[in-house]
Amino acid sequence: MEGKVEQELGSQNHHHHNHPCVEISMEIHKVETPPKRSSLQKLKNRLKETFFPDDPLRQFKGQSAKQKWLLGFQYIFPILQWGPHYNLNLLKSDVVSGLTIASLAIPQGISYAKLANLPPIVGLYSSFVPPLVYAVLGSSKDLAVGPVSIASLLMGSMLRQEVSPAQDPLLFLQLAFTSTFFAGLFQASLGFLRLGFIIDFLSKATLIGFMAGAAIIVSLQQLKALLGITHFTKEMGLVPVMSSVFHNTKEWSWQTILMGFCFLVFLLVTRHISIKKPKLFWVSAGAPLLSVVVSTLFVFAFKAQRHGISVIGKLEQGLNPPSWNLLHFHGSHMGLVLKTGLITGIISLTEGIAVGRTFAALKNYQVDGNKEMIAIGVMNVVGSTTSCYITTGAFSRSAVNHNAGAKTAVSNIIMAVTVMVTLLFLMPLFQYTPNLVLGAIIVTAVIGLVDIPAAYQIWKVDKFDFVVMLCAFFGVIFISVQEGLALAVGISIFKMVLQMTRPKTVVLGNIPGTDIFRNRHQYKDAVPVPGFLILSIQAPINFANSNYLNDRILRWIQDYEEEEENIKMHSSLRFVVLDLAAVSAIDTNGVTFVQELRRVLEKKGVELVLVNPVGEVMEKLQKADGTHDLLQPNVLFLTVGEAVSSLFSSMKGVSSSHV
Amino acid sequence: MEGKVEQELGSQNHHHHNHPCVEISMEIHKVETPPKRSSLQKLKNRLKETFFPDDPLRQFKGQSAKQKWLLGFQYIFPILQWGPHYNLNLLKSDVVSGLTIASLAIPQGISYAKLANLPPIVGLYSSFVPPLVYAVLGSSKDLAVGPVSIASLLMGSMLRQEVSPAQDPLLFLQLAFTSTFFAGLFQASLGFLRLGFIIDFLSKATLIGFMAGAAIIVSLQQLKALLGITHFTKEMGLVPVMSSVFHNTKEWSWQTILMGFCFLVFLLVTRHISIKKPKLFWVSAGAPLLSVVVSTLFVFAFKAQRHGISVIGKLEQGLNPPSWNLLHFHGSHMGLVLKTGLITGIISLTEGIAVGRTFAALKNYQVDGNKEMIAIGVMNVVGSTTSCYITTGAFSRSAVNHNAGAKTAVSNIIMAVTVMVTLLFLMPLFQYTPNLVLGAIIVTAVIGLVDIPAAYQIWKVDKFDFVVMLCAFFGVIFISVQEGLALAVGISIFKMVLQMTRPKTVVLGNIPGTDIFRNRHQYKDAVPVPGFLILSIQAPINFANSNYLNDRILRWIQDYEEEEENIKMHSSLRFVVLDLAAVSAIDTNGVTFVQELRRVLEKKGVELVLVNPVGEVMEKLQKADGTHDLLQPNVLFLTVGEAVSSLFSSMKGVSSSHV
Repeated sequence: MEGKVEQELGSQNHHHHNHPCVEISMEIHKVETPPKRSSLQKLKNRLKETFFPDDPLRQFKGQSAKQKWLLGFQYIFPILQWGPHYNLNLLKSDVVSGLTIASLAIPQGISYAKLANLPPIVGLYSSFVPPLVYAVLGSSKDLAVGPVSIASLLMGSMLRQEVSPAQDPLLFLQLAFTSTFFAGLFQASLGFLRLGFIIDFLSKATLIGFMAGAAIIVSLQQLKALLGITHFTKEMGLVPVMSSVFHNTKEWSWQTILMGFCFLVFLLVTRHISIKKPKLFWVSAGAPLLSVVVSTLFVFAFKAQRHGISVIGKLEQGLNPPSWNLLHFHGSHMGLVLKTGLITGIISLTEGIAVGRTFAALKNYQVDGNKEMIAIGVMNVVGSTTSCYITTGAFSRSAVNHNAGAKTAVSNIIMAVTVMVTLLFLMPLFQYTPNLVLGAIIVTAVIGLVDIPAAYQIWKVDKFDFVVMLCAFFGVIFISVQEGLALAVGISIFKMVLQMTRPKTVVLGNIPGTDIFRNRHQYKDAVPVPGFLILSIQAPINFANSNYLNDRILRWIQDYEEEEENIKMHSSLRFVVLDLAAVSAIDTNGVTFVQELRRVLEKKGVELVLVNPVGEVMEKLQKADGTHDLLQPNVLFLTVGEAVSSLFSSMKGVSSSHV
Repeated sequence: MEGKVEQELGSQNHHHHNHPCVEISMEIHKVETPPKRSSLQKLKNRLKETFFPDDPLRQFKGQSAKQKWLLGFQYIFPILQWGPHYNLNLLKSDVVSGLTIASLAIPQGISYAKLANLPPIVGLYSSFVPPLVYAVLGSSKDLAVGPVSIASLLMGSMLRQEVSPAQDPLLFLQLAFTSTFFAGLFQASLGFLRLGFIIDFLSKATLIGFMAGAAIIVSLQQLKALLGITHFTKEMGLVPVMSSVFHNTKEWSWQTILMGFCFLVFLLVTRHISIKKPKLFWVSAGAPLLSVVVSTLFVFAFKAQRHGISVIGKLEQGLNPPSWNLLHFHGSHMGLVLKTGLITGIISLTEGIAVGRTFAALKNYQVDGNKEMIAIGVMNVVGSTTSCYITTGAFSRSAVNHNAGAKTAVSNIIMAVTVMVTLLFLMPLFQYTPNLVLGAIIVTAVIGLVDIPAAYQIWKVDKFDFVVMLCAFFGVIFISVQEGLALAVGISIFKMVLQMTRPKTVVLGNIPGTDIFRNRHQYKDAVPVPGFLILSIQAPINFANSNYLNDRILRWIQDYEEEEENIKMHSSLRFVVLDLAAVSAIDTNGVTFVQELRRVLEKKGVELVLVNPVGEVMEKLQKADGTHDLLQPNVLFLTVGEAVSSLFSSMKGVSSSHV
């Protein structure tokens, strides 16, 4: 291996030795055009880069037909990949982690369903079927599937805009299942159409602000249960909730507050322990179930429900009933249902994919984003026909799953089986579970979504991202969950477009003793070359920025002409060198800009020199420019160094001075 | 001048001579961070680049207070700049060109007002006041101001959605003036708030498609006058107009068709002559007025109005009446008025600015976009209070103005005076002017907007732009003028965003005999360096593309590992070199991506090397990276060449082979 490189570098060195260095720096290399491709080939290539950047069919290449079928099935059902190698050791780990997440999933399922204004049992239904579907289709080994807080909150608050869950519970349930159906359909289509990159538009800053805001909104809703208020506002915002809380101080129940406070402190302490010592993950994982058991026994023993402590009440028993007959595909609420499906779908997808990616990176395997989307989508479509509402991979439970040593998706199956047993036999036990403990469980679960260190990190690194984060946060708290999110996404995209309309142009100077040219602002020892204005443009040139670039370059020229040193030395501008290395694309406006610039400079007696255009830019300039004036060898160079040394010697030739 | 450079380059050469070249190529230059600036300074700088890229206050620097006042007044009223130097020679040219464009402006003004469903005289009013205002405020020397076809069409068609010009002419007129007021206000605010770059979002492709579509829609409307149809559809689309034309064949009047055909042919021939020989500009410039005179005399002499030829009819006489009392600032049509003002404002602004820039570039002076916007905006606000509807710089008349030798905005004053004389004394003469000649004048004027060669050029250079153009064209023809425009703008921006989500990554190779590294796809003789994967990323790294970049880079690594040559030579991957020269910015997602990539590569035993990050990227990586792992001197280099040669020698050290 090194032999060849030696030869390579060796020949380079020889080359240097044979010719003196001055000549080397004068040797001119040609700018080449890339090999010709038809428009169709280019389109194909572009489509491939846009929709198949991960080249999912790579593994099928050069395989036999039979092998291709097998690989295809394995691709669709990842369980076929790892299933055959499954063994008892893996099972042991998966049973432990499965039982651990089940102990979290049962109380959280009940709580989140209440957050979504749905019957508590729907939360358990949703922890039974979707994990089974995911175990077959999903490619993450750590994802713990089930209802999550933010999607529950979103679905509950959006549907409540049109239908009251208290007055019309059946319609509300129908709309929830239908929204789940559309969410799943939308998720699966995103994956199938390979449009998964849409969730990338939720930047880290947006998500951190959004999640923190949503956590606060969710926690505020728990004040109802934790304070024992019966007449609570139906709105979500900070202002209406706080005013509702303080206008109903008479309804506060000290028994509820005391008991709620105790359990909340207990849960927060266990959470803190598990954060400090990840090995003690079971402390926080078991605490919610323990709290439910203890509080239920307490209420049952002391008949506390008669002393102002509200309880869940009687729950049905049995497995998920079918619900396809409950799906609504017409009627007056279709718009709302579609919107809810879209937004909850995107948000839950984002959480699921992010969780999957995080743990995949930790364990060093890869999850295919688009495939995961199909898995999550199908899971929700199936869920919507079996009385489940929206589910995804939950961050907190997946972390517990990971810490508990989950090896494969079998831990999801174990969890589902445990939930099944609960549904079949244990439901009556929840009758006396107080609502306050559910509230405490939710608060403990969502408090982790407020990520202060990450916010500080964003503040440190990028002030603009911090502003985006604040917009998402305050938008969620003061306006509404979905509008806060939309605001932050809008601002992020606006920033991106603005960045495109105002690309950077920097003046390059020569780093003494080299033929390297760098930004004179960044490299203080980079010196200008008299007679040359060397600019680097750092963005695609297109309709949105060609006018700006024109103005900006003319201003650079003015700057040059007014620079004292240049006036003193009578070194008038002779060449404007545009380093196009960073111009990754150009459109018709951009091409016109370059042509116009050349024309305008020519009138001033200044020559426009292009350096290192990339293939696409080169091609388009060639096509547009019938006479090839822009691309003649004397104004087109491979490096700035070659351009300057070559033009500089030609300048000397003309002015025939001092030499 | 050359002396210093000689010294410069000389010292460089000496340097080369003193050390052998090999060492030169091994000499390592440090990547520097730009000088520290506070966040506030950065914000200030960013705002300046965004809103004041042309640095309009530059001329005020270092002037005395009195001089500053003078310059300030000259800045606001450009007439003060050129006025004092005005002389008789300039006046002669301006009189000739002013009279020439007046002969165009009078018939076109009447015609365009009819296109906007307004009384013909409003078109003449609009050719009187606005040119005077522009002469004082405008900085273009060639712009001929007045009503234009596309803005007239837009205003007429948009207002007709809610108010019928036939049934409620006064309200329609009021709404037209109010829309003009808001258009002017909007235009002036864009200029004042320095948001002029908004019109840049109308790319060349969009405009060419839009103008061609609008020209066809406008021409179709003229079929009413040219065929003599009395019951014509009120819709604008191709389909309803054609069906209206062919369902009313009984109304066709052969006298009208014959006469219209003759004048249309005459006008088209004169237009053709002027295009072929620009010196004969007066042929096409005088033809419309001549046609009006001849046709009017013909109708008057033969009483043709009794034979089915419709005429304009009696017109009022006198100068613009005030109209501020007609402006509506409340009521049920406010939404429509605002929308119409916004859209006609943007479109007319785009035309005016583009025309100004075109002729400024031809004569080698500069127009300040934002200042022009203020001028055009104030002109429309003033116009709306003096019975004028929307006006701007018209392309066709400005071209005639330029060809006729206009030297300053005085030609606009001459034109306005001529229109004034017409308004005061000549209005009765138009009573017998047939509508068909106005139709022929409009068709001749707008046919130039269909720019087939430009469309072909776009097809040749950029297929995607061609698609955008077609969308604008067919959108205008089949949907509606404003929606076609919105569609094309939407697609252009979508393309820009898509480009951002899928930035180019290219593999670089060494050009033998140099330390230059270039795209291996474009430069066929560039060779890979075994053990190195050298990638150049050509876009800002941000939330929209960091996931893609991650996937793509992992695929490049897979490609490297599967490449036959590398397998054969057992040259496993040791370094991934990222050339960041073209990464002009980075956000928190981007920083996380780089850190994650480093971590993932480390697990594979591959080192991540960064080359030539720009100042901002460098700073953010530093801030995010507490331990500075990413920016240690052994993994951060100034050029790819230095990185490869330095790392390559260290590799040799480790594997201690063949050398």
